[in-house]
Amino acid sequence: MSVATVFEPPDLFQLDDLLTAEDRALRQRVRTWVETNYLPHIAEWNERAEFPLQLALQIAQFGAFGGNITGYGCAGLSPLQYGLVMQELERADTGLRTLASVQGALAMNAIHMFGSDDQKERWLPAMARGEKLGCFGLTEPDFGSNPAGMTTTATLTERGYALTGRKLWIGLATHADVAVIWAKVAGLPGIDSSSPQAIRGFLVERGTPGFHPTLIEQKLSMRAALTCRIELADCHVPPEALLPASKGLKSPLLCLNHARYGIAWGVLGAAAACYDEARQHALRRIQFGRPLAAFQLVQRKLALMATELTKAQLLAFRLAQLKAHGHATHVQISMAKRNNVETALEIARTARELLGGIGILGEHQSFRHMNNLESVKTYEGTDDMHLLILGEHLTGIPAFAG
Amino acid sequence: MSVATVFEPPDLFQLDDLLTAEDRALRQRVRTWVETNYLPHIAEWNERAEFPLQLALQIAQFGAFGGNITGYGCAGLSPLQYGLVMQELERADTGLRTLASVQGALAMNAIHMFGSDDQKERWLPAMARGEKLGCFGLTEPDFGSNPAGMTTTATLTERGYALTGRKLWIGLATHADVAVIWAKVAGLPGIDSSSPQAIRGFLVERGTPGFHPTLIEQKLSMRAALTCRIELADCHVPPEALLPASKGLKSPLLCLNHARYGIAWGVLGAAAACYDEARQHALRRIQFGRPLAAFQLVQRKLALMATELTKAQLLAFRLAQLKAHGHATHVQISMAKRNNVETALEIARTARELLGGIGILGEHQSFRHMNNLESVKTYEGTDDMHLLILGEHLTGIPAFAG
Amino acid sequence: MSVATVFEPPDLFQLDDLLTAEDRALRQRVRTWVETNYLPHIAEWNERAEFPLQLALQIAQFGAFGGNITGYGCAGLSPLQYGLVMQELERADTGLRTLASVQGALAMNAIHMFGSDDQKERWLPAMARGEKLGCFGLTEPDFGSNPAGMTTTATLTERGYALTGRKLWIGLATHADVAVIWAKVAGLPGIDSSSPQAIRGFLVERGTPGFHPTLIEQKLSMRAALTCRIELADCHVPPEALLPASKGLKSPLLCLNHARYGIAWGVLGAAAACYDEARQHALRRIQFGRPLAAFQLVQRKLALMATELTKAQLLAFRLAQLKAHGHATHVQISMAKRNNVETALEIARTARELLGGIGILGEHQSFRHMNNLESVKTYEGTDDMHLLILGEHLTGIPAFAG
Amino acid sequence: MSVATVFEPPDLFQLDDLLTAEDRALRQRVRTWVETNYLPHIAEWNERAEFPLQLALQIAQFGAFGGNITGYGCAGLSPLQYGLVMQELERADTGLRTLASVQGALAMNAIHMFGSDDQKERWLPAMARGEKLGCFGLTEPDFGSNPAGMTTTATLTERGYALTGRKLWIGLATHADVAVIWAKVAGLPGIDSSSPQAIRGFLVERGTPGFHPTLIEQKLSMRAALTCRIELADCHVPPEALLPASKGLKSPLLCLNHARYGIAWGVLGAAAACYDEARQHALRRIQFGRPLAAFQLVQRKLALMATELTKAQLLAFRLAQLKAHGHATHVQISMAKRNNVETALEIARTARELLGGIGILGEHQSFRHMNNLESVKTYEGTDDMHLLILGEHLTGIPAFAG
Repeated sequence: MSVATVFEPPDLFQLDDLLTAEDRALRQRVRTWVETNYLPHIAEWNERAEFPLQLALQIAQFGAFGGNITGYGCAGLSPLQYGLVMQELERADTGLRTLASVQGALAMNAIHMFGSDDQKERWLPAMARGEKLGCFGLTEPDFGSNPAGMTTTATLTERGYALTGRKLWIGLATHADVAVIWAKVAGLPGIDSSSPQAIRGFLVERGTPGFHPTLIEQKLSMRAALTCRIELADCHVPPEALLPASKGLKSPLLCLNHARYGIAWGVLGAAAACYDEARQHALRRIQFGRPLAAFQLVQRKLALMATELTKAQLLAFRLAQLKAHGHATHVQISMAKRNNVETALEIARTARELLGGIGILGEHQSFRHMNNLESVKTYEGTDDMHLLILGEHLTGIPAFAG
Repeated sequence: MSVATVFEPPDLFQLDDLLTAEDRALRQRVRTWVETNYLPHIAEWNERAEFPLQLALQIAQFGAFGGNITGYGCAGLSPLQYGLVMQELERADTGLRTLASVQGALAMNAIHMFGSDDQKERWLPAMARGEKLGCFGLTEPDFGSNPAGMTTTATLTERGYALTGRKLWIGLATHADVAVIWAKVAGLPGIDSSSPQAIRGFLVERGTPGFHPTLIEQKLSMRAALTCRIELADCHVPPEALLPASKGLKSPLLCLNHARYGIAWGVLGAAAACYDEARQHALRRIQFGRPLAAFQLVQRKLALMATELTKAQLLAFRLAQLKAHGHATHVQISMAKRNNVETALEIARTARELLGGIGILGEHQSFRHMNNLESVKTYEGTDDMHLLILGEHLTGIPAFAG
Repeated sequence: MSVATVFEPPDLFQLDDLLTAEDRALRQRVRTWVETNYLPHIAEWNERAEFPLQLALQIAQFGAFGGNITGYGCAGLSPLQYGLVMQELERADTGLRTLASVQGALAMNAIHMFGSDDQKERWLPAMARGEKLGCFGLTEPDFGSNPAGMTTTATLTERGYALTGRKLWIGLATHADVAVIWAKVAGLPGIDSSSPQAIRGFLVERGTPGFHPTLIEQKLSMRAALTCRIELADCHVPPEALLPASKGLKSPLLCLNHARYGIAWGVLGAAAACYDEARQHALRRIQFGRPLAAFQLVQRKLALMATELTKAQLLAFRLAQLKAHGHATHVQISMAKRNNVETALEIARTARELLGGIGILGEHQSFRHMNNLESVKTYEGTDDMHLLILGEHLTGIPAFAG
Repeated sequence: MSVATVFEPPDLFQLDDLLTAEDRALRQRVRTWVETNYLPHIAEWNERAEFPLQLALQIAQFGAFGGNITGYGCAGLSPLQYGLVMQELERADTGLRTLASVQGALAMNAIHMFGSDDQKERWLPAMARGEKLGCFGLTEPDFGSNPAGMTTTATLTERGYALTGRKLWIGLATHADVAVIWAKVAGLPGIDSSSPQAIRGFLVERGTPGFHPTLIEQKLSMRAALTCRIELADCHVPPEALLPASKGLKSPLLCLNHARYGIAWGVLGAAAACYDEARQHALRRIQFGRPLAAFQLVQRKLALMATELTKAQLLAFRLAQLKAHGHATHVQISMAKRNNVETALEIARTARELLGGIGILGEHQSFRHMNNLESVKTYEGTDDMHLLILGEHLTGIPAFAG
């Protein structure tokens, strides 16, 4: 089993020097937990398409859920610490880091940024502990890259709002205690009801009539994760379900920033797992009387992987610094998300290739990470969308619609 | 279901003009069979890691098994026809084409090229009909790219030979009626028993004591295929088990040529399936008010896919012409195998990306093909080995051992 | 001097088998001429930015000028033969092949396709012999990829037409006896004068008042070539200057098809020159006690170059077959132009790298070809434009304007 | 003229925040000098293959020569400041930064690290002021990537040493007042005279009999630079010519570290010049009624360029931090050199392409930088050698000799 050997993530530019003792201790705690509780089982879970949701309570202790938030029982981690936690979680599996992203970066941050005091107090502490689960319903079947076009509506009724529409690719929805649902509110003064300005967030509790989440099956990526559809069929919620500070499309987009930041860090863990697995294999595997690692073609692959990973690490560390000083822009986060996911995917592919025949077996990590990263390349902004976000920043001209 | 739409494989350089009416009819028969009997079920088989071995009898009718052989009940297809059959089979799934390659290109060609008349008459007609199955045991756990180093031995005994060793990545072994096993024969006059010149082929029948095949499970690639290990523990076979004309490592390498030729064609089918799926999706899927196909970034992807696929098709067609004239070299075949697999894999990756979120679902084809092609990139000579085969041809200097 | 060694262009897929003895003889004549008359001097010409225009008379003998045309003293070469001539000329230098393209593919084909009998008889035989030179004025400073927008106008006067406008990147203009000038004719019945339908071709003879060609200097690409601007300042031409069969933008675009076909072939010569130079260097150059050609990293580069070049050759040969049967479409030609130029440029870059330090010296060929191919990637349709031409073909949706 | 517009180098990750006011002032001084004194003339110098050596006195004021050294009249810049100076110089032209590298990073650092007090006092202050020029003779015609094999010898004589051999690719040699020549000393106790341990450095002064430098002409890269050969024909130097602390091959390799650090920074300037030129062109150039910058295909190119440049900047900044703390390893420097040169070259190529037709003109910068960077990719360790340096670090196995 490749897990049996000691994990040696690359740190070619001595970024560990930038960590405090506390940072390192936190990272080590997550790493040990992952090696003890996740890696021995993930091949099986992945094969069976099972997700160990019960472990949510355990990763909560690391600040995995809303760790970036201060107060309301949240961990108040520094951006760097939060990033390190995401990195270690995704070293285990993208499904595990995605749990943290959906629950924390998306649902909890939505409540924290746009919720009332009551909403915050009710949900955030319990969610931070992993006792309550949340999900985040933005994407729709016909509106992936263009959420502004969403068609889910919230109609004002005598008792609150009636939500109608369909959401897709919603992590955790079938098991969430609370769903943050984004919908266009009809009848807001001065706002066209089909406009992105009409978008508001609502908290829909589990078991609300008309709220129907179902699990998506037969996935080839993120098999050990809960990915769902939600059907909202005249789903009535009270007035207090509204996230009062949410105002238009920019509100959910601010949540995406949090998630993308976590992704930029998380995929470093997946990439390091693949790189390390390939390197260790190349050192052990003998062909033509020498370890694979002795061949120029193999050294080239390892050197390129390590170089690209180092650059992705530098992006993430710098982003953490900028965030610690309060000014990481959505363009910077977008760029890091796109680059780091692409980098991790390329590393996973090369690692898979370097493993040769055994690389197709579930007991090794690189193929699973490679498949998972296909999802990550698509979600929270596709590769192309992020190129165009940066393109708009560089030129001043939006080209999303061609 | 993506299968419901009409398949439109690209033919940008009008290579169909080079087909006879008979060629087209054969291709259409396989294509229709695949659409009727395989595509509606492959997602399920892939999810469950099942292989529909019973269909072997049906694809036998197309000359899938040993179709390149003339006589002994084999189809006697032209190289072009044989290629077209492989292409259509792999459009369905790499596992299906691999069945044909293992049974036909490897096992049957070994018997045909190196077997006695008795061996040929006993096995080839039944195998051509798919009634008997064969496998091909060359690769060992420690000898993938370097089969010359194999350690499986055949010791001369009073009653024939005793085979001892281990084979890995052997398609069909658990269900084969006959296994072609390559081993080094001790005591051949003038040949060191560890030398590649000592390699000979043996036919080991199902149920022979000491022949222990087992299925490899938890694969992430070619899930709908039978991939096996074989343990040979003092496995006694009679003198007639020897393939009398086999002589050293070059004998199994000649079989690999047949298989690689089929791969160079087969992956065109996988690539066309992916390209077509992505193109049809891009035409249907609307974002920002326009089909994806209207965006420059998407057209770029489609254009590059189509260009690369066209070039891979040209390589395969030219190879068929050369083979029809009797002189396709192992270097030409090696180059086409490497290039076409790499091309197909890149196309599958791009297609997967173009499909966006739905691209991770088993009901679509590109992700499955992408995963399958990882195996094909490794087996029958890794990408790197083929680069070095060509490198040796171009420079006169072998660099396999660095 | 690298020229001293024997040129060994790669032919990995035995495409030479498709040549007749006559084809080979023609190719050999051009090759020998190039080695005798061009290669010994090109480094010097390139350094000094000189073009040996006097050699036009010599390459005329190979059918370099309008060789695809039958009659009017033209060579009536087969598409394959014409391609081979372009290949050998561009092996010498892109500037030489461009002379043939401008004079033959563009100017002569314009006269042949759209000219009157008088125009054809007057110009074609003399141009085919290289005694008269022609140029082709389509592109304008502000209209490169979008010639439909051209602003050069032809105003009907009592004595014929008055041409006004500016043309850029016009090969040979300073030395041409006749210039084919494309301009929008005002006052055509039912056609808006700014519409592409208003475009017509005119033959402007050297020395016509108001026709001012000037040479473009300080180029870093195609230094051994004549690249010019033309200023048309109320340039009066008689009614017989009109190419009577020219009708809208599609007329000059048909000429571009001829030129692009020649480019698709020509760059094979540049690529072969680079590949051969790099391979021969790698075999001779010793480092660490072995020829460079013995190292895996070098073999990888050579193998990839040879593979890509083979595929480009296959595209060109198939295009010649299609053209010989009368049906090479503009999309097929566009695809081959884009692919083959990109392939040749990548090969030139890799060859330059393989040459190491000496690769920056003018006496070697790869750097010069690399620089020349930058022009070829841009002219007769940029790489991006050709992607979108193919994209439109594949999707049915034009995306040129985004 | 593209120089007329204001230069806007990209700083997407706010690395400018890490600069002190002093750092910025220094950078601005160099930048202004370059814009005033170099950019208006470089196209002409490049065309004519001239180098403005007289400007050495002016760039000396910025600490361009040995700026990393403290004492002996040197500027004592921080690693970051030194990097910024190299960046601004190479924004002008690689030839200018190379002047600084040869004089400062190589020759002066050799004297500083291995020279006697007398040697240091005699040469360093004058060289720091640019009044004396030095060169660095390590590479030989047959020993580029493998300097250990050098054949230049130093024979002990009664009056000192006699140097014999040939050096190639030696910047400034024809104009240097002093040449640092590396040679193998025969007769050292316990050291084989052909061993790399026998290598020592010698200071050879201009005009010494037997020292024959000649200029290399007809270059296609770094035309505005002095690149030379040196022939050493029984060239006698006194005992004091020996650099007393030099000891084996590792001595000149330590000098290379300094040069490579400067290159990793310098090419950021070339890359920024190209990126900025391309971006400004894309914003100005109208096709199909819109600026090029509005097209998705163009935005993709700009976004990728900016992302890669940002990562290269992060590598350089982190390297400066590590160096400031005293522990940048040769592997880290090697990785940054290789990556940043490759990045800059790719950016230059893309910028050249984006400029379209005008991109081949000397008045624009990208083509010239692209050509220059070909030299930089080869010198101070080729791309492949740096991959293998990193490969050895990652695997513990040297694979330079295959």
